[in-house]
Amino acid sequence: MKIAVLSGGVGGARFLRGLVEVVDPRDITIIGNVGDDREVLGQRVSPDLDSILYTLTGIADDERGWGRADETWRALATVAELGGESWFRLGDRDLGLHLVRTQMLREGATLSEVTERLAHALGLQATLLPATDDPLRTFLETPAGTLAFQTWFVAHGHRDEVDEVHYVGSPDAAPAPGVLDALRDAEVIVIAPSNPYVSIGPILAVSEIREALKTRRVPCVAVSPLVGGRAVKGPADRMLARMAGGTSPSHVASCYAGLIDVLVIDELDAPAEPVSGVGRTVVTETLMIDAAAARRLAAATVHASEALA
Amino acid sequence: MKIAVLSGGVGGARFLRGLVEVVDPRDITIIGNVGDDREVLGQRVSPDLDSILYTLTGIADDERGWGRADETWRALATVAELGGESWFRLGDRDLGLHLVRTQMLREGATLSEVTERLAHALGLQATLLPATDDPLRTFLETPAGTLAFQTWFVAHGHRDEVDEVHYVGSPDAAPAPGVLDALRDAEVIVIAPSNPYVSIGPILAVSEIREALKTRRVPCVAVSPLVGGRAVKGPADRMLARMAGGTSPSHVASCYAGLIDVLVIDELDAPAEPVSGVGRTVVTETLMIDAAAARRLAAATVHASEALA
Repeated sequence: MKIAVLSGGVGGARFLRGLVEVVDPRDITIIGNVGDDREVLGQRVSPDLDSILYTLTGIADDERGWGRADETWRALATVAELGGESWFRLGDRDLGLHLVRTQMLREGATLSEVTERLAHALGLQATLLPATDDPLRTFLETPAGTLAFQTWFVAHGHRDEVDEVHYVGSPDAAPAPGVLDALRDAEVIVIAPSNPYVSIGPILAVSEIREALKTRRVPCVAVSPLVGGRAVKGPADRMLARMAGGTSPSHVASCYAGLIDVLVIDELDAPAEPVSGVGRTVVTETLMIDAAAARRLAAATVHASEALA
Repeated sequence: MKIAVLSGGVGGARFLRGLVEVVDPRDITIIGNVGDDREVLGQRVSPDLDSILYTLTGIADDERGWGRADETWRALATVAELGGESWFRLGDRDLGLHLVRTQMLREGATLSEVTERLAHALGLQATLLPATDDPLRTFLETPAGTLAFQTWFVAHGHRDEVDEVHYVGSPDAAPAPGVLDALRDAEVIVIAPSNPYVSIGPILAVSEIREALKTRRVPCVAVSPLVGGRAVKGPADRMLARMAGGTSPSHVASCYAGLIDVLVIDELDAPAEPVSGVGRTVVTETLMIDAAAARRLAAATVHASEALA
């Protein structure tokens, strides 16, 4: 069963780790967010692609929730000692990957080509594609002004409320090679439990990707990132409350209006009324407390689409 | 007593460590070689400036002879794992410095400005100046063809014989700010025991620096890098044999024709005949086996110039 998954970083990566255990990973194409990519110390950092890559190849730091396991911070300590830019936490092993990616990009490779090489070198079995090879960057309108994604997320600890999200570069962004094919060939399209605004939003801001979802002929299943109306981690709940008007399943579904057929939600969010704007709601445990829970959630998601088909 | 020192990397740095103990370091201006600078993994590496900086601030790895003490290689191991460029050994702490330097250069700072900031951050008391802020790179003519310095030195392990040395960029290279002032204000000019072709040669390839030495009004003392006609480390002896015709003190002096007044040589090289092309020869122990030996050599060098003046 071929599956295309739209995914952000950490939450999406956890879900994907469950998915590769219930579906042959070679049948999975992951379309990853690049809206939070950034130049740090001259290095091109792609946090969401890397979270997915590290998680699925077993080298992620699960406790910290980002970056590589068994990491050290010696290069960055020197940068700090010398008064350089050290607010963005780049570990030594992680930095090695950024150096390779940045050099390949400077030599003219596309982000897709780089990602394929990194994925191959690390032994990733699923296919990982950036949503686009073109520059597409997420900016947030906040009471403190317009902030670039990582400035808001890391430097400001995503404390500023968000009134609006912009995806700079999206009008000119084309899907990366393979993205439209994957969406067309999939038997089910999944939207991972990632932040609708800053993880999935940038992917859907690529107009041809949004169009492909609108005109899909197979079920599209979104997994809500909320549990009991709260984000497991990060600012998704606060963003939904402020920009969508609430944190109910209907508010989550409203982020994907016209694009999804099924919404998978947590038992704590089971609504009294049908969820508006979605054909079917699947209620299950969505909190991925361990690998088994992630596997069960992935299985429920795939099963929901099968039942619908 | 104000001193200006022309210096390459490792051997020069050892000499300088002795010098700062016999002269107030605030009176020393070091004019460092940049001919072996190179882009590695997108980073601007300045090996000789860094060897001097690390050695004089006590953070160099003395046993290895290059790079920082207490170093790790985790970023580079990841680069190798991912199939990236890993032949040039960049340690994690070392890499932190290169990241800061490269970012400052990309933002428009000159190499002098960067070097000043790094030196200040690491607490260097002497003044360290690159010979030039302009691109000046050493290339070697060998039987295997023309090789960039680091390709020859590191990748080829300086095995190829050298027929000729080119300093690409030298016709347009101006002395970095402060270099000519330091040469003019010095009471003695010293050429450190570095390779005449690939360490001192690139400095002297900056025409205004060579001119300043030619028209000097103070003594210029060169310290031979050879002991018993052999290089302590590296290819200086083989280069002298092939390009100058021998490894005697006269052959060393011929590299600095018209530029020096005194040549400091090792006891093992004490010649029967006067050394040609130099006013005076000082014979002493030049092998810097420890800090005390480096101090004695530095003292003998300073004393030689005083005696002359």
